[in-house]
Amino acid sequence: MPIFDAREVGAINERVGDLGEHALIRRISQRMATTDSVVVGIGDDAAVAKLSGDAVMCTDAMVEGVHFRRQWSSPSQIGGKIVARNIADIAAMGATPVGFTLSLTVPADLESDWVQELISGVNAECERAGSAFVGGDTTSGPTIVLVGTALGDTAGVAPVIRSGARSGDVVAVLGQLGCAAAGLALLMRGRVEGEACVSVQQLPQPNYASARAAAAAASSMIDTSDGLIADLRHIAVASAVDINIHKASVPMAACVRDAADDCRVDPWTWVLTGGEDHAFIATFAPHQVPVGWHVVGEVSNGRGEVTLDSQVWNHAAGYEHFTNHTVPLLG
Amino acid sequence: MPIFDAREVGAINERVGDLGEHALIRRISQRMATTDSVVVGIGDDAAVAKLSGDAVMCTDAMVEGVHFRRQWSSPSQIGGKIVARNIADIAAMGATPVGFTLSLTVPADLESDWVQELISGVNAECERAGSAFVGGDTTSGPTIVLVGTALGDTAGVAPVIRSGARSGDVVAVLGQLGCAAAGLALLMRGRVEGEACVSVQQLPQPNYASARAAAAAASSMIDTSDGLIADLRHIAVASAVDINIHKASVPMAACVRDAADDCRVDPWTWVLTGGEDHAFIATFAPHQVPVGWHVVGEVSNGRGEVTLDSQVWNHAAGYEHFTNHTVPLLG
Repeated sequence: MPIFDAREVGAINERVGDLGEHALIRRISQRMATTDSVVVGIGDDAAVAKLSGDAVMCTDAMVEGVHFRRQWSSPSQIGGKIVARNIADIAAMGATPVGFTLSLTVPADLESDWVQELISGVNAECERAGSAFVGGDTTSGPTIVLVGTALGDTAGVAPVIRSGARSGDVVAVLGQLGCAAAGLALLMRGRVEGEACVSVQQLPQPNYASARAAAAAASSMIDTSDGLIADLRHIAVASAVDINIHKASVPMAACVRDAADDCRVDPWTWVLTGGEDHAFIATFAPHQVPVGWHVVGEVSNGRGEVTLDSQVWNHAAGYEHFTNHTVPLLG
Repeated sequence: MPIFDAREVGAINERVGDLGEHALIRRISQRMATTDSVVVGIGDDAAVAKLSGDAVMCTDAMVEGVHFRRQWSSPSQIGGKIVARNIADIAAMGATPVGFTLSLTVPADLESDWVQELISGVNAECERAGSAFVGGDTTSGPTIVLVGTALGDTAGVAPVIRSGARSGDVVAVLGQLGCAAAGLALLMRGRVEGEACVSVQQLPQPNYASARAAAAAASSMIDTSDGLIADLRHIAVASAVDINIHKASVPMAACVRDAADDCRVDPWTWVLTGGEDHAFIATFAPHQVPVGWHVVGEVSNGRGEVTLDSQVWNHAAGYEHFTNHTVPLLG
């Protein structure tokens, strides 16, 4: 790993282009979370980590203007969110996070302090998840693009996949739904901070440990990146079952209700279709639902349909890239 | 894994935005290379692969206008190159490639056929390397950004790191040097195809298997992504040794010599400082150099300096992002 050079502490208004790629990497590498699993960390061609089970791997991107705005989120929040989005997927497999890599594309005129605060956020969320931050890639480009990749370890537990739901299982949720969507609506109305839902939009806090702890009991699991109905549809299709949700059982956070009053919209749209909360949804045999999970519906024989109180949900099911041209962040 | 729908075969001039994210993913997932190591492939929250040793992981990005131009490379070549850049790093650790993920950021008005040809190139290079293509992420953005992440397996061999070079070792090269830089110069002069150096710039073909086979004998190894002198400097600094190169021993490909005549430049600049060839450089005890490797210099006690015929190389050592403002692709 490169040696930190105290002379490289950032000057006022210093830009990434003033600093150069290798000095930037040296600064970043000072701050990287590590664990005992890491055999080779940053500074070589690749990182090496010891696993006790199978390797689990996923990747997820955030593009400025599509997934975040710099005026709405601090660099630390943006850095934390790229970690949370990825490690939530590792946890949704029932796996333990081990390593995280970040590919960072930034314009040369970006302030180097912004990048360093972003890296602090990456590290903080890696530490919260128990993962090491093992390396990455920095490159110049016209738009900020962050791509995270997370490595996990099944650690002797069979991976919890989407296709395991069975007729007779119940559907349960861990965490809040609709907060990130409500937070986005508030941000669009100029509320930058201090509201619970805004905080979830800026930096979701998935309960990785409880998701992993549920792995032995869950027949299927997913994190809510696209929205409750859209993500349940992924499970229903993969498992070739139908899923019915009882609206009265679905929890609604106070901040979602308040934001809906404020914005004069139906809060259920956020709760049922809002993505980016990175809550967890899983199916369990009845009586095997772990503490902290909230039962919201059940699984029956079928063909991949998701219903709400036995009715088809006729509104948009969740976010889809490219075709959701009206998504506010693209505006 | 989603089922392929024949109705989704591309219409003429169909755009990514006409198709939508999930239909695009369904098309991509039809074409993905797999292996027996893959326990869970595309279509779940994360992929799962069986390893026999430690996990090896690296990431690398390519940005349109910085790392490639669509008029200079086919989508298949661009897709192959993002794989080659990553898996060369896995091979330079002496590891076996297992899985590859691709994050794909593209404008909604990009032709969907272009994306599918890119994916064909990703698959072809994964297959050449013996790796599975296990998943990825697609998102919209103003510029094409590809980020690959490769997963490897040490498979019982100690990883070959940069810090292992020892005084008395020799330095050897596997593959050609300067071809990709010469190819870029030719492309800038309007030579789009048919020249050997242009092909290397478009799609380098690292000899992954021979690099891995050298792992047991090599004391350090790296692939030439930044250029011979710059990459040797990484080894020299990490190992706290000096490295001297004998210019007369450094191989020069015929296509580099021809391109230099054509462009009226000194071919040694390309050979010594041109990146992107993804050849391999390693250090070995004398008499342990594997067949196919070409000895070009030796290691002595020192402080991280690289010399050419015992002289300091006073020109630019290699490519660095952000500060190389004059790099042609940024122009």
